[in-house]
Amino acid sequence: MATVSTDRPLLGAIEAGGTKFVLATGTADGVIVSRHTIPTADPVSTMAAASDWFDAQPAIAALGIASFGPVELDRRAPLWGHILETPKPGWSNCDLAGHFMSDLGVPVGFDTDVNGAALGEFHLGAGRGTSGMAYVTVGTGIGGGVIVNGQIVHGAGHPEMGHIYPRRAADDHEFAGACPFHGDCLEGLSSGPAILSRWGKTLSDLPAEHEAHCRVAGYLAQLCHTLFASLAVERVILGGGVMKTPGLLARIQEATMNAGANYLPGRSRQSVVMPKLGENAGITGAFLLAEEARSI
Amino acid sequence: MATVSTDRPLLGAIEAGGTKFVLATGTADGVIVSRHTIPTADPVSTMAAASDWFDAQPAIAALGIASFGPVELDRRAPLWGHILETPKPGWSNCDLAGHFMSDLGVPVGFDTDVNGAALGEFHLGAGRGTSGMAYVTVGTGIGGGVIVNGQIVHGAGHPEMGHIYPRRAADDHEFAGACPFHGDCLEGLSSGPAILSRWGKTLSDLPAEHEAHCRVAGYLAQLCHTLFASLAVERVILGGGVMKTPGLLARIQEATMNAGANYLPGRSRQSVVMPKLGENAGITGAFLLAEEARSI
Repeated sequence: MATVSTDRPLLGAIEAGGTKFVLATGTADGVIVSRHTIPTADPVSTMAAASDWFDAQPAIAALGIASFGPVELDRRAPLWGHILETPKPGWSNCDLAGHFMSDLGVPVGFDTDVNGAALGEFHLGAGRGTSGMAYVTVGTGIGGGVIVNGQIVHGAGHPEMGHIYPRRAADDHEFAGACPFHGDCLEGLSSGPAILSRWGKTLSDLPAEHEAHCRVAGYLAQLCHTLFASLAVERVILGGGVMKTPGLLARIQEATMNAGANYLPGRSRQSVVMPKLGENAGITGAFLLAEEARSI
Repeated sequence: MATVSTDRPLLGAIEAGGTKFVLATGTADGVIVSRHTIPTADPVSTMAAASDWFDAQPAIAALGIASFGPVELDRRAPLWGHILETPKPGWSNCDLAGHFMSDLGVPVGFDTDVNGAALGEFHLGAGRGTSGMAYVTVGTGIGGGVIVNGQIVHGAGHPEMGHIYPRRAADDHEFAGACPFHGDCLEGLSSGPAILSRWGKTLSDLPAEHEAHCRVAGYLAQLCHTLFASLAVERVILGGGVMKTPGLLARIQEATMNAGANYLPGRSRQSVVMPKLGENAGITGAFLLAEEARSI
């Protein structure tokens, strides 16, 4: 076990996902002392297993939870810290934050999984030194978090990212899109399942000259351009399974530059990059949520 | 002249526009004590005339400037408070903030005209009580400001808003757009000059059944949807000359609702509205910039 210096208290972190819960102890500088993964079962047994694991660790000063959604993020709301209405059996209205606050007796910080990852990348990863950034994950769905003036943006609910409508080229009208709500919104065109349903393969399995690469890069570039043009973020960090496709980042960077047409005043400070924390972004962000919770 | 209570110091405000400078004294609660307008001539004589006017008023504790752009907003940058490269003759590199700071000997707050208006609407107008909002003006151009967690968003440069690419309907491909940089970006499709160049009349002068109304409402609704979906702002405030078109706001509200398809988690808290401060938004925001500058 790593040595923990006394001026950085030990913190707990949970990355609560739909298929697994990642549990960890560590410090606010992102050092992971101990880490454990449990499958996501029903809420009662999953939360009990998580509590048992934390009980077996040295005492933590606070806990941060970066959770799958939808969740209530308004600390003044009665349902703060709860999972809201979800198709996941048993989890609707589960009081995730409340359970651990009473079970472990520590302050709890709580946010979405993507906001957690955004916070981790902002303080300790690819977003360091920026005044504002967006973290977007492109995988089973498309979701994102935004940091502005050093703070996570909540707003009404939280940023979604996946459901904006990218423009499609004149010769691109055969696929109706895979989003049950919006058809050919960004998620309906560029998520992993959308790509699979349109072209029958993952983007990585399609040859480099296949039209899918430019199409998907073009859609994602429009999100980047939109974030630059509407919010003036300095950096867009693109993660998730689809982004592991070789060459995709470079195509998106080029298409984003073309969309901007050398016009936006802050363009020299803007970039599209990959995450630096990899699969530790969420759990690192959860440590930072725990650290914030200590001062609430 | 209105009575000024002693606990609210008198502040100065300048709304620096391309055709006129609005000068005012008043307080941080938006009360205008005295107001004066001068035409925008060359920088030297315009700034001298403004200084003369302030010299003839009771002493102010600080000055706020909401300026036409492009401007440098980073207080750590050498060109902070300057007008940057502009086609407006003589104004490139004009040190607007520095002039008044040394001439009037008071702290100066400085931001863009639209950020000033956004700040005014946020604290004293249609954005009151929201956690985050965007103010967008639709006129000669399309520009906007964003407030998140109570603060103006600067980022790299500042939000532009006008240069995102709205999707166009399948039967809407005849007009190439009026933006010299991006063709049919939002500004190239929905600004006053774009409407005039496409349909030969202002939107207000076109009959209610003319396709222009639905087209323009649809483009602007996509900006609203994008701001809701990507940033989760609670309110989008739409001002400017084009928005004075009867019925336009209602069409935009309906199209925004359709674009969202009843999906976004915070939708019950989100709305598209008109400004409340009218043409005083910018000058009111400038008082707030002055108030902020007092504590810098």
